[in-house]
Amino acid sequence: MRPFEVVIAAHGPLAPAMLQAAEMICGAFEGAHAVGLEPDDTPEAFLERLSATLDPGHATLVLTDLYGGTPHNVACTLYRRGSEIRCIAGVNLGLVIEALTTHDPLDDALVDRLVASARDAVVDVSSRLAVRP
Amino acid sequence: MRPFEVVIAAHGPLAPAMLQAAEMICGAFEGAHAVGLEPDDTPEAFLERLSATLDPGHATLVLTDLYGGTPHNVACTLYRRGSEIRCIAGVNLGLVIEALTTHDPLDDALVDRLVASARDAVVDVSSRLAVRP
Repeated sequence: MRPFEVVIAAHGPLAPAMLQAAEMICGAFEGAHAVGLEPDDTPEAFLERLSATLDPGHATLVLTDLYGGTPHNVACTLYRRGSEIRCIAGVNLGLVIEALTTHDPLDDALVDRLVASARDAVVDVSSRLAVRP
Repeated sequence: MRPFEVVIAAHGPLAPAMLQAAEMICGAFEGAHAVGLEPDDTPEAFLERLSATLDPGHATLVLTDLYGGTPHNVACTLYRRGSEIRCIAGVNLGLVIEALTTHDPLDDALVDRLVASARDAVVDVSSRLAVRP
């Protein structure tokens, strides 16, 4: 049982789509949330929705789509205000699955491992394949 | 003008959601396609749809969600059959935007740069923020 919540925060339909893709592969997850920034959202409205997914007293890992984007900046605002969150930007599907399936506590070691794992998941596949006939 | 096509190949709604998120930030793109693997798809059916997005005589960069997943494996099959594609697994939104906005040719140098950029986009943000009061 994963001892923290996971929230994906991203532009438009990307957050729920990431979660659906992970669940298509692994089955349903508990303690997993997706918050999408809509085109007419203000940062304040998005902050309110993101904040509403956080459960005070429970650690939460927030995975954002893009360093510097609104979902990311809003997550940083919540962190600065003292929310018990950790935040990794640049989410890909491998990171979502790794984060959702771990049983480890949300500490520096886990965050470092998740970042390394997400980076390693980016691979130029064509260079690895045998030369074509 | 980007001298190649870009196809995002991913599980369920993730492929179109990635493209929509990129367009929410940058505006509409030409030469950009999204192919989603549906839960009842066979690999053969997915291969047919992915193959239909490729324009013979035009280089295509295929961005897949997960190394070893069906969208990825099918892209590798097309590569082995001689399609003029390059394929990067582990796509994140930063990679999509970088790939869609470049004007460079689809060669080794560009693929290396895109991989490095997608990896650099994965950041433990909480560690970068000032210590909280």
